Amino acid sequence: MNTYPSKLLENAVLELAKLPGIGRKSALRLALHLLRKDLPEVEAFGNAVIKMRKEIQYCNECHNISDAELCAICSSPKRDKTTICVVETTRDVMAIENTGQMNGVYHVLGGIISPMEGIGPEELTIESLISRVTDGEVKEILLALPTTIEGDTTNFYLFRKLKDFSLQVTTLARGVSIGDELEFTDEVTLGRSILNRTLYDGMFLKK
Amino acid sequence: MNTYPSKLLENAVLELAKLPGIGRKSALRLALHLLRKDLPEVEAFGNAVIKMRKEIQYCNECHNISDAELCAICSSPKRDKTTICVVETTRDVMAIENTGQMNGVYHVLGGIISPMEGIGPEELTIESLISRVTDGEVKEILLALPTTIEGDTTNFYLFRKLKDFSLQVTTLARGVSIGDELEFTDEVTLGRSILNRTLYDGMFLKK
Repeated sequence: MNTYPSKLLENAVLELAKLPGIGRKSALRLALHLLRKDLPEVEAFGNAVIKMRKEIQYCNECHNISDAELCAICSSPKRDKTTICVVETTRDVMAIENTGQMNGVYHVLGGIISPMEGIGPEELTIESLISRVTDGEVKEILLALPTTIEGDTTNFYLFRKLKDFSLQVTTLARGVSIGDELEFTDEVTLGRSILNRTLYDGMFLKK
Repeated sequence: MNTYPSKLLENAVLELAKLPGIGRKSALRLALHLLRKDLPEVEAFGNAVIKMRKEIQYCNECHNISDAELCAICSSPKRDKTTICVVETTRDVMAIENTGQMNGVYHVLGGIISPMEGIGPEELTIESLISRVTDGEVKEILLALPTTIEGDTTNFYLFRKLKDFSLQVTTLARGVSIGDELEFTDEVTLGRSILNRTLYDGMFLKK
């Protein structure tokens, strides 16, 4: 499809096609769908996305997406601040919250160490995690990273950084299958893997 | 996934999930993708969609999507105004333009007759087509509607409306497989079916 009947349509299609997993044909279908909607609906759609990008904040403590300087979890008095669950992204926080098995707080790394993608420890919020551990009364760090080579590498890096503090470093139980992403794991498996978390001895999980 | 860490995120996810074929999980993935982009990029995305919906026009002559009162095809002196190709939607115009086999002009019905979906002839731009035929020097109407029961019904309805005018009513050659949508037909087949178009005798194509 080379020739769009309108520059306005073409521009919207090209923007929609920038979304991951959406090609030109799907983008055209979405654009024509939006054209059939009333203007207020389309404005609500476009503005919701812009407002989110413009106004969203990140928690000063755990770096999760938040509507305030401190997220709802970090500011809750019901949460056990002595247990920090370390995850890669916001989606992992949501997946774990969904199990109802984690009463501690989180630390969102914003990624995992990946030499292939040029992501080193300094790109992640690791310094901030260390200072939370240094300042606070943290008793346990639960590493809930993907069970991939990059996840293992990051586990090992964090373990070495944390081993001189008087705290336990744990990982999710092996209920999570190797190579799976947390967000696609079913709730029961993920919940059980939090209950059965094991002492981390610094070894790669694949052994 | 019940609990979003932010109302702004939740709102954007709910809006994205209104798009056809996009569920909550995909919408979350898209929202987090947009959060990683720079603000100007996200504004360009949101505003392109709003601007399209707000400013797009429909051609007074053929009812195709347009940036002006008369579309580029209808206002082109190179186009043969004596041949009108009748299609269901803008996507069909784009698919046929892509074959390079149609030098006439178009008429976009905006749908096809479908009692199941409550779409009758009066919902479509059929009156406008008749007045184009009445006013002009049209020699041929090429019916390029889907080869479905609804398409056949619409073909038959238009044939009865047009049969007293001194013009030929043709349909695409049977190269297009029954039950297929025009936009997913390959260019060669679609191009050939324009070259081999046949006189319409008012019979259902499925016979």
